[in-house]
Amino acid sequence: MTLSPTGEGLRRALDGPFHDLKQRWRDEVTADDIVRDTALSVEEAREWTLDRVVRLAHRDLVTAGFPAEVGGTGNVAASVANFEMVAMGDLSLTIKTGVQHGLFGGAITNLGTDYHHRTFLPGAISTELLGCFAMTELGHGSDVQSLETTITWLPDTGEFEVHSPTPSATKAYIGNAARDGRMAAVFGQLIVDGEHQGVHVVLVPIRDEAGADLPGVTTGDHGHKGGLLGIDNGTIRFDHVRVPREMLLDRYGGVDEEGRYHSPIESKNARFFTMLGTLVRGRICVGGGAASAARKALSIAVRYGDRRRQFRSPGLGEEILLLDYLTHQRRLLPHVARAYAYGFAQNELALQLQRVSDGDGDVRDSRELETRAAGMKALLTRWALDSMQEAREACGGAGYMSDNGITMARQDADIFATFEGDNTVLLQLVAKALLLEYKSTWGDMDLRGTAQKTAAMLGQTVLERTTARSVIERLVAVADRKPESERIRARGWHVQLFEFREKHTVEGLAKRMRAAGKLQGAEQQAAIMACQPHMLEAAKAHVDRVVLEAFIEGIEECEDDYIKAILVKVCDLYALSTVEANRAWFLEHEVFDAKRSKSITATVDDLCGELRPKARELAEGLGVPEEWLKHPREAVPPLLP
Amino acid sequence: MTLSPTGEGLRRALDGPFHDLKQRWRDEVTADDIVRDTALSVEEAREWTLDRVVRLAHRDLVTAGFPAEVGGTGNVAASVANFEMVAMGDLSLTIKTGVQHGLFGGAITNLGTDYHHRTFLPGAISTELLGCFAMTELGHGSDVQSLETTITWLPDTGEFEVHSPTPSATKAYIGNAARDGRMAAVFGQLIVDGEHQGVHVVLVPIRDEAGADLPGVTTGDHGHKGGLLGIDNGTIRFDHVRVPREMLLDRYGGVDEEGRYHSPIESKNARFFTMLGTLVRGRICVGGGAASAARKALSIAVRYGDRRRQFRSPGLGEEILLLDYLTHQRRLLPHVARAYAYGFAQNELALQLQRVSDGDGDVRDSRELETRAAGMKALLTRWALDSMQEAREACGGAGYMSDNGITMARQDADIFATFEGDNTVLLQLVAKALLLEYKSTWGDMDLRGTAQKTAAMLGQTVLERTTARSVIERLVAVADRKPESERIRARGWHVQLFEFREKHTVEGLAKRMRAAGKLQGAEQQAAIMACQPHMLEAAKAHVDRVVLEAFIEGIEECEDDYIKAILVKVCDLYALSTVEANRAWFLEHEVFDAKRSKSITATVDDLCGELRPKARELAEGLGVPEEWLKHPREAVPPLLP
Repeated sequence: MTLSPTGEGLRRALDGPFHDLKQRWRDEVTADDIVRDTALSVEEAREWTLDRVVRLAHRDLVTAGFPAEVGGTGNVAASVANFEMVAMGDLSLTIKTGVQHGLFGGAITNLGTDYHHRTFLPGAISTELLGCFAMTELGHGSDVQSLETTITWLPDTGEFEVHSPTPSATKAYIGNAARDGRMAAVFGQLIVDGEHQGVHVVLVPIRDEAGADLPGVTTGDHGHKGGLLGIDNGTIRFDHVRVPREMLLDRYGGVDEEGRYHSPIESKNARFFTMLGTLVRGRICVGGGAASAARKALSIAVRYGDRRRQFRSPGLGEEILLLDYLTHQRRLLPHVARAYAYGFAQNELALQLQRVSDGDGDVRDSRELETRAAGMKALLTRWALDSMQEAREACGGAGYMSDNGITMARQDADIFATFEGDNTVLLQLVAKALLLEYKSTWGDMDLRGTAQKTAAMLGQTVLERTTARSVIERLVAVADRKPESERIRARGWHVQLFEFREKHTVEGLAKRMRAAGKLQGAEQQAAIMACQPHMLEAAKAHVDRVVLEAFIEGIEECEDDYIKAILVKVCDLYALSTVEANRAWFLEHEVFDAKRSKSITATVDDLCGELRPKARELAEGLGVPEEWLKHPREAVPPLLP
Repeated sequence: MTLSPTGEGLRRALDGPFHDLKQRWRDEVTADDIVRDTALSVEEAREWTLDRVVRLAHRDLVTAGFPAEVGGTGNVAASVANFEMVAMGDLSLTIKTGVQHGLFGGAITNLGTDYHHRTFLPGAISTELLGCFAMTELGHGSDVQSLETTITWLPDTGEFEVHSPTPSATKAYIGNAARDGRMAAVFGQLIVDGEHQGVHVVLVPIRDEAGADLPGVTTGDHGHKGGLLGIDNGTIRFDHVRVPREMLLDRYGGVDEEGRYHSPIESKNARFFTMLGTLVRGRICVGGGAASAARKALSIAVRYGDRRRQFRSPGLGEEILLLDYLTHQRRLLPHVARAYAYGFAQNELALQLQRVSDGDGDVRDSRELETRAAGMKALLTRWALDSMQEAREACGGAGYMSDNGITMARQDADIFATFEGDNTVLLQLVAKALLLEYKSTWGDMDLRGTAQKTAAMLGQTVLERTTARSVIERLVAVADRKPESERIRARGWHVQLFEFREKHTVEGLAKRMRAAGKLQGAEQQAAIMACQPHMLEAAKAHVDRVVLEAFIEGIEECEDDYIKAILVKVCDLYALSTVEANRAWFLEHEVFDAKRSKSITATVDDLCGELRPKARELAEGLGVPEEWLKHPREAVPPLLP
């Protein structure tokens, strides 16, 4: 199974700055390393997953993001790219390393100080110290600020006491909690001398070497789930568990030897959201991981549609390939185009993460990154679930057999819409950041405050281009000079449509929110609530535009003219199928008329037909090694003659 | 957990003519009878499913559809309603009885003669004779006419020889094939004296009492699947297997004792599609079963959203219930409204099946039923998957735990989009039937013939009301007299919108198909292919209208004014959210303007708010017994405080 030159060229373009890194995975990592047998029971899946994550860690494949002094490279963008590659293999394995290295290790890295790095990171990296990221509780998931677990300073003994005061304070859905974890990074309300200092994180040993719960700790097992069977999600309750003072991850707030609370950040609110903000990588990884799983499913479905024939046209001989049906092209090719679009945007996001990580701590840069990460996470995971579903159905009955490779990935990816932030909540946070021009604390869901603070006139934020600025200006100028009839495939026109939609939805939202801000009590509450769907629309319009710009940048950076020409068409399909999906909005706002609207649909049809002969190469370009697509179990006869 | 009076009233209205039958299930069938433990392995799930299907059969709960002389009631509508009730419990169990009683038993009932009924039905009903419905092959699924298995008449011995001439002729995905089946109803090309008589069905024993493959038969096991783990799907290959002449199900064609082929239907094509047509119940059941699973998922999600709180509005005290957020109402309530709409339409469809079954064999009635069944199957299964997904996500992390009850049902329902006809293929058949005014053979995918035969002017078919005719005429007249501003909630206006959309899409399609019919060869092929998405649109518009009419009829038949008033609002939400989803089309065809389009969206928001206080009762009305929602495993603490 050799890669076509076009497939290889597309792959190189889509990998972009991460090509060498991703190529290492393709060259060195076998299906046995990374592809799980779908028939494993919960217990077997957990064993396999733990075993494989240990092996990956020892091969230095998932630890790029750690500081150099403890054996990492400090290259957080590379850690995102690694995550995306694991996700092309198996999502349980992905989330296992995500919990261990990304969340547990990441919390220690970002919220801890030198002591914590030296003491705990080597074990976290090597997996000798398996850890949990104990944030979510039964009672509170999205609303982290309302967590009930307490971390109380005991001045008499110089210790912290970690406690779950209510049943709903029980930590829930925690990866590594049911079986493997030995320590947990526990989020709770820090109380010092009776004063609440807000949510902080403390390291708490939860199990002994043999795996038994330590005194005061009670773990539970969520058992079977809708997917991710390799992850031992569980519950943790604390009954007055004491840990030494040093166990608090105190980079942003701690208690000194004299028992005094200190923090470099005055405001409790700002402190809390700064701490959460350092964990932004998790959100970026989740979006990228879901997109990888979607690429895999699309790779399988496109290959299937390019081999499978059904129905004969009378008098025309051979049976017809599924991908030669327009309906089938329509099902898959716009998703393939979107896979490219999101791939380029995800590369850009990883680089942005690296810049902020290496930067001077500029607050606006951080907020922009957090906004982008949240918006991308919401759109990528949504699309991943939708496209994987389409891919499954496009393979018919064969697609339902686990050997085909799609269903398990689809089931594993399901929860990506929820964890690292429910998509509906995240999109509202994105809208809020846009309304406040990145000026306010990121992550706070106070919509009343937002209504009161929304700027009278939104300034440059809305239209600020994120990348490829001069290229885009040139494209817009070119489109402006074209006669109306020729603009439908002019990239500059697409940009104008995307920009108008964003600007108009955000500004319209701002007007409504400002009006709501002037009301009182229940009336205000109702007015804000009524804006919710508008907030989701504004956030989506924003992310759509950012993604289009990243695609344009990706094409600009491609040095092979032939590949570039294909990518231009793929970008046409992404742009126009996005416009098509939103054409009701454009018609309602009289941006174009009925005739143009219909011609957009016709052009999407045309583009599907034009790209169809390159479907196989486009699937190869998505970058999933063929070997990983082949499932290890071959008990049944091959499903295709 | 008592049912509210409103919930009970809604349930009674939605059950309609099947209330007593469905109530028997709720009164007599326990969770232990019908709710599967989600953690069972493939082997355990198969065992549980077989055990429970045997028990249901012995309690006379799933055998209504068989002829009276062998112990059934001949009430096929009741058999559909029974199927819907099993599907509220567990879909593996549903499909197990569906394969055994509906497909295997149904093939014998409908394609066999008195001999077959007497000889095989008692065992099929009691489950003593477990059977397969061996239609699909590896190479051909949707295109049944191209099956490769041969059934060759051997004049010398007076037997049939069943054979799989190629690997792609292997029967595939067959329920009961991997483990339990002892006999198969095998679809294959009948060859008598060298002449091909088209697809016929023959009964072939496949395993001995002990479960070993009989000589010449090779079964295989598909193993783990994306869901329906309780079904032992497998493959069957035949190597020159001989069966006596009597084993051919010869109601529509067989070989007499002298070895002469005879059939009451002259045309091979008509014969084939007549045989397939008798199996229409399976398609009706699949749509209804998927809808039942969706009702269950929505029942769980609505209850969750009505208890779960998240985020506090500053200064406004208690945390907010999820269902008090407009975004959350928007996620669930239009789906609940659609559950009612499809429920009423499904009742109507089951009654129509009964009428055709009891009728005088009028061909047009049969074709209309087949068209309705195909369209409903496609729309109901699509909606079921979408709404179950939304329900899962609306429950957040709790929704991903198998104990919550949604994920397994969602995974089991996944294949409903494919089996009993791929939805994309079915919708094209619906469009074809509309174009040809039910005059042509049903089920034939010859689109070239359709193009050539499409009527110049479509007559009454398109606008023929299916039910509640006089009521609808009155509603339309009322709407016509209302001032424009008041029409948005006038049912007659909704009807007009739905009818216009259907009429316009079907007529527009007819024009394009007729134009294509005049072309030749590859040009014609391309023109027909370009119509495919238009065919899907026309079919959906048709079914949407039929569903709205059924909802109107259902409301008309409700005798409780209070319940009726709620149903009117639910119907408003169904109608307007459907219009909203298609508003781009209405704008493109200048049916209403931008302002009206926006006001439709605003009215859907309003309706969500108006129905929110009745959300719990509406969920109860969906008719899933509370006891079946409670999962038997309670190893983890309850997920809600």
